[in-house]
This record gives sequence, structure tokens and C-alpha cells, in this order.
Amino acid sequence: MADVHTTRRARLRDRCAATGVTAALVTGAANVRYLTGCAPQGAALLVGPGPEDTLVHLRPPPDDDPEQGQPPDDLRSVVLPSPDGDAAVAAAELAREQRADSLAVEEHHLTVTRHRALRTVTEGIALTDLAGAVEHLRLVKDEHEIAALRIAAEIADQALGELLESILVGRTERHLALELERRLVDHGAEGPAFPTSVGTGPHSGMARHLPTDRRVEEGDFLTVRLGARYRGYRCEVGRTFVIGTAPASWQIELYELVFDAQRAGREALAPGVACRDVDRATRQPLIAAGHTEGLAPWTGHGVGLEIDEDPRLSPAAMGKLDACVPVTVEPGVHLPGRGGVRIDDTLVVRPPADGGPELLTITTKELLAL
Amino acid sequence: MADVHTTRRARLRDRCAATGVTAALVTGAANVRYLTGCAPQGAALLVGPGPEDTLVHLRPPPDDDPEQGQPPDDLRSVVLPSPDGDAAVAAAELAREQRADSLAVEEHHLTVTRHRALRTVTEGIALTDLAGAVEHLRLVKDEHEIAALRIAAEIADQALGELLESILVGRTERHLALELERRLVDHGAEGPAFPTSVGTGPHSGMARHLPTDRRVEEGDFLTVRLGARYRGYRCEVGRTFVIGTAPASWQIELYELVFDAQRAGREALAPGVACRDVDRATRQPLIAAGHTEGLAPWTGHGVGLEIDEDPRLSPAAMGKLDACVPVTVEPGVHLPGRGGVRIDDTLVVRPPADGGPELLTITTKELLAL
Repeated sequence: MADVHTTRRARLRDRCAATGVTAALVTGAANVRYLTGCAPQGAALLVGPGPEDTLVHLRPPPDDDPEQGQPPDDLRSVVLPSPDGDAAVAAAELAREQRADSLAVEEHHLTVTRHRALRTVTEGIALTDLAGAVEHLRLVKDEHEIAALRIAAEIADQALGELLESILVGRTERHLALELERRLVDHGAEGPAFPTSVGTGPHSGMARHLPTDRRVEEGDFLTVRLGARYRGYRCEVGRTFVIGTAPASWQIELYELVFDAQRAGREALAPGVACRDVDRATRQPLIAAGHTEGLAPWTGHGVGLEIDEDPRLSPAAMGKLDACVPVTVEPGVHLPGRGGVRIDDTLVVRPPADGGPELLTITTKELLAL
Repeated sequence: MADVHTTRRARLRDRCAATGVTAALVTGAANVRYLTGCAPQGAALLVGPGPEDTLVHLRPPPDDDPEQGQPPDDLRSVVLPSPDGDAAVAAAELAREQRADSLAVEEHHLTVTRHRALRTVTEGIALTDLAGAVEHLRLVKDEHEIAALRIAAEIADQALGELLESILVGRTERHLALELERRLVDHGAEGPAFPTSVGTGPHSGMARHLPTDRRVEEGDFLTVRLGARYRGYRCEVGRTFVIGTAPASWQIELYELVFDAQRAGREALAPGVACRDVDRATRQPLIAAGHTEGLAPWTGHGVGLEIDEDPRLSPAAMGKLDACVPVTVEPGVHLPGRGGVRIDDTLVVRPPADGGPELLTITTKELLAL
């Protein structure tokens, strides 16, 4: 049986062949990892033009680092002669030596300066745009990938659950974020999936708030968004709590609104459903309640080797969901000066016959008063 | 007195005018921060063509976040209409409306895809390369910047000092790294300056080792490299220790070698000295001892708003040091399978009349047995 990475590279070759391109140069780090199973820093992958693919990198990752992994056996591995060099340029030179007549490159990852350096070593070769071809292959996950996401979600749920049992009043957003990240690692994560967001009081409910030195106070909303990285796969979970004995009525009202919106989004997930329709299901209750200002441009997105992948759940999104696509559903409302609510889950799209969307992040969504 | 950021933008204008360019579009995040004092996510700065400069961004940073700061009053601030849009494209449209006839962009930051989007909205305007013009302005630091670096270094020294007083044997690289990052924040850092590196046993002495689950063992070398971020400024300090009561003779020998190389590098720092000569002073003792394989391509680099800035201290580096340029001196030797030693300081280049290089990271460089 072919190695899973070999199969993925074969699919990329088929895609290139269909557009008349003889070789592809992959430089996006998550794309290299998806196609090879390893991610040495600064690596570039040449797929084609010959039967053998080549990974050019600075140095092999250490033997015992499961996070970076080792190159598979059927992949030629070339260590860059100068550690100051650009692996993409060296890989492009290889393509020329192997008489590629066209080379598709990832124009959305390469800077103009690096692209120019590639052109100088590929005279006579047509440089084309590989665009999001590898990202497209990454959309639908296999069961090994979903298993990794499931473990990542369990770890994030555990870290969040432990935080809820500790004293929160008086602690800063920055410290709570650091404690969550330590707990993620305690439970087996390779690290946080993204910078942990903790927002208290007026910062609660914001989409991508970075922790400050503000301290948690009685009566605050507290919004937490965190995720674990496990075997390279990243999930996210976000919850909003209220600090103190009893939430104010505006807090209860706002919470119920966002909760309903999030449930509507989750329930809309199914294979064949348009991404924009999931966004509308999530967004509509918020707009109907008059929260038109300051809504995020998306209400969810794919997750995998990156925390923010295709598909996008947004009003302008094209395309439909497939089975085995993991996405977040994460509506939120932020009232300037007062704060707000965000609720964020990672789910896997599954057909109704399989029980519908699989919820990976199972921390309760009741409004807890902590 | 003009605001420091206004003065910096005036210097950039002068530089553009000297090359016949009427407007500049700055997209590198550290460059935007240097020129405006604030760093909203995804911001783009248009300098010229009119007398007023414009910052285009998604939303203003929160009022109470000193890390991101607030735009200065003499800067026009434009919030991007669509939060899904590209601030650089919106800024380029402004340049066209203001009848710029040329626009210099940062080709080393922009992807080919974004550059193409800029071209579509700048018909009739010559797009040129701003290259490293802003990075060049950032080379020599003023005393406010150096004061921030000095505090960042103090914080890193404190975090490292506390770690040395704790029990290390049996703990994993990952946990030690997280504990160091928590201590950085405890002592007032905005966060780590870069991912903290902790390498034990065979991982010790590696240039950019990422922490694994390996546990500290008796007899190990332990290499730690960390830094604090303070007002956006980043320093670094790296030390190697030995675990247990008495180092082995190969450990003492290797440590002394790297220590001597690092001292030679520090002592070579002075205004007017070629960067490559500092590199040679640091590198030569290692090569003379037969360690030619696997040496890093640089033995030091500038620090500031980014952890890895100009100048580079490497064999191929062009240019000379100036006074008030902060750099690292960080030689290391790694013996595959056995481990090694790295010693890393941040210093500010000062003329001999001012006492020579100013050492910011003052943690002892004696070989400590922990």
C-alpha cells in the first residue's frame, strides 16, 4: 500500500498534468508537511518533472521530534549546501536540470523578491501559478487527520475545564492565557494551535483579541478562545462566561442570542450545503436582533494543519461543504465599551445518515457563572 | 518638537524623494510600527504623495493595549470598509486618488498575489521596489529604543535566573520553555521575543532547537535561549549549563572554546568595524579547533522590533557597524548525538571612548553545574 503522502503527491501530479504543467514547487509550510509528512524549517518540495520528488531543506529535523517528522523513504532529500540559501531557488534549479518546461509555484506564499530570484534560475521555463491547488487537496480530511483533530479538541476541552475550576477574579488576561497554554502542553499538545485569546469586561466577545494586563473583575463577561496542536493538527474552542454570582439581564439576553445563532450554524452543517448558507444561518439571528455593526466577516472556517483554512463560512464564500471537512462555527457580538459574547466550536461535517455534524469540542455551552 | 514617528516618516520621504519616488506603501508589520508607533493587525501605511500620511487598518487597537499603541495625531487613520479586504490595496487606491505617479512597495514583504492585486488598482502609476529602506532606517537605535531593549534584557535575565534556582532533572524541554515564558510575563514582558528554545543532552548547542518532550538528565548539557518583548522591542540571551555535580572533561573543554569565541566576538564590536570581521573573530576559534561542520551561517544579528534584523554578522555580510546598533553575539558548537554549547548575548555597539560595547544581558557566563 502506498504511503499516504505518496498518494497525496500523486494527486497533485494529476492535477498539474491536467493543466499541462510538468512540475510544481511547493513552499507553503503546511502544504509541504501535508505532502511529505515532515516540515523542516525553510523547506521546499519539488514534485516532478521526473518520477522522483525532491525535498530541499536546510537540515533534517532531529530524529526524536515527532512534531517535525522524518521525510518518507520514496522522497529524495537534498540538504541545501549553504544554510544561508533559499531552498525554493535550489529546488527550481533542480527543476531546470531535470528539463522541466513549466513550473507551477505558489504565488500566494512567495514574495515578489523570492519570485524574482526563482525567475533568474529558470530561464526557458514557464513559471505559472499553482494557486491553492494543495490547499484544495487538504480540504477533505481522512480519518487519521480527523483522529488527530479529535485528540486536539479533547486536550483543549481539558485545559479549559481546569481553568474553570480555578479562581479567576484579579488575574490578568495575559496570565490566564499563559496558564491555558501550559495546561495544553500538560495534556499532550505540541503547543497552542494559535495565540490564546482571553478577553475580560469590555474586551469580551471580540474576534481576535490579544491578551492585555486587564484583570478579571466581578460582573465581567470573560471570553476565552484556545486550541491545541496535535500531530500538526489544530482545533479551536471558544466560550464566554460571566464572573460572579448572577449575570445581569443584558448579559443573559446577549448570551442566549449568540447561543441560538451558534446552534443554528451548527445545525446547518451538512454535505452539499453552500458555505454561504451556513454563514447566513449563523449570522441572521444576530442581524435580526440589530447587531449589524462590527460583525466579523466570517462566522466560521476550516481547520487542519493551519488554524484558518478553507472553506470560509462568509457571505461571499463560494462552494459547498463536503463530508469530512472540519470547520468552526463561531459567531460573536461585541458591544463597544461593554463587552460581548463569542461561542466557538470545531465540528466535522458528516451526512445525516451518520448522525450529522460531529462535535469535537464538547465543553458545555451553558452560561456558567464563575 | 516633532513626534519621533513623524520625524522617521520625514526621513523616509527624503529617501523616496532622492530616488524620484512620490509615495511609499509600507506593509511590513515592524516597519509600520516603527513609522507610526502602532501596529493594528493587517495595517498598511501610505507615506505621501500629499503632505499627509495615511494608516489603513481593519480596526483601531483597543484603547488600553500599550503593546499595539494608538496612531499619532498627525496621521490620517482610515478603517477598511470591509474587514475581509486588504489594507494595502485600499492604501494603493488612495495613492491613485491622490495622483501619485510612482509608488514604492515592499517587494520582500508582499506576495506575488498581493502585488498583482495592487497592480490592478494602480494603473498609470509606476510600482517600484521600496526594498529595505525602512529596515535601513531602523538599524541605528535612539536612546528610547535602547532603553526598551535594556528593560527587555533585564526581564530575560530575571526569568533565566529564577529557572536556575529550581529543580531541572526530570522535566521536559517543553515544560521548561513554558515556565520561562510565564516568568517573562511575570516580570513585565509583553510576551516572549521568539519561541523559547530549550535543548537538553543531544539537543544542546543547536542553533534554533524547538523544545521536545525529552527530559533533563544527569550529565546533560542544557542550552536555553530566550528573550523578552518590551514595548515591542526584543532581546535575546542564551546560556549552556551542565546538569549534575561535575562536568565531564569534554564538556569543560567545549565550553571554554565557545566561551573564548563569544568573548572574541564581543570584544570585536566597535563603530566602523566590518560586520564580517566580527563574524570572523567569533568564528575563527571554532574553526581553528576543527569545528568546521554544522556551524550556523551567522554568529550574530541585529535586534529591535524584530528578533532577527540587520545587520547580519556572517562571512558574506556587507557593511560596517555603527554606534547604537544592538546586536547578538552567539557562537555555538553542536556535536551530533552528544550535544554542545551555545552562548548568546545582546549588546549595543558603543565607541571605546564610551566604554566599548554595552552588555545588556548580564546573566553569568561561568559554566554552572546545576
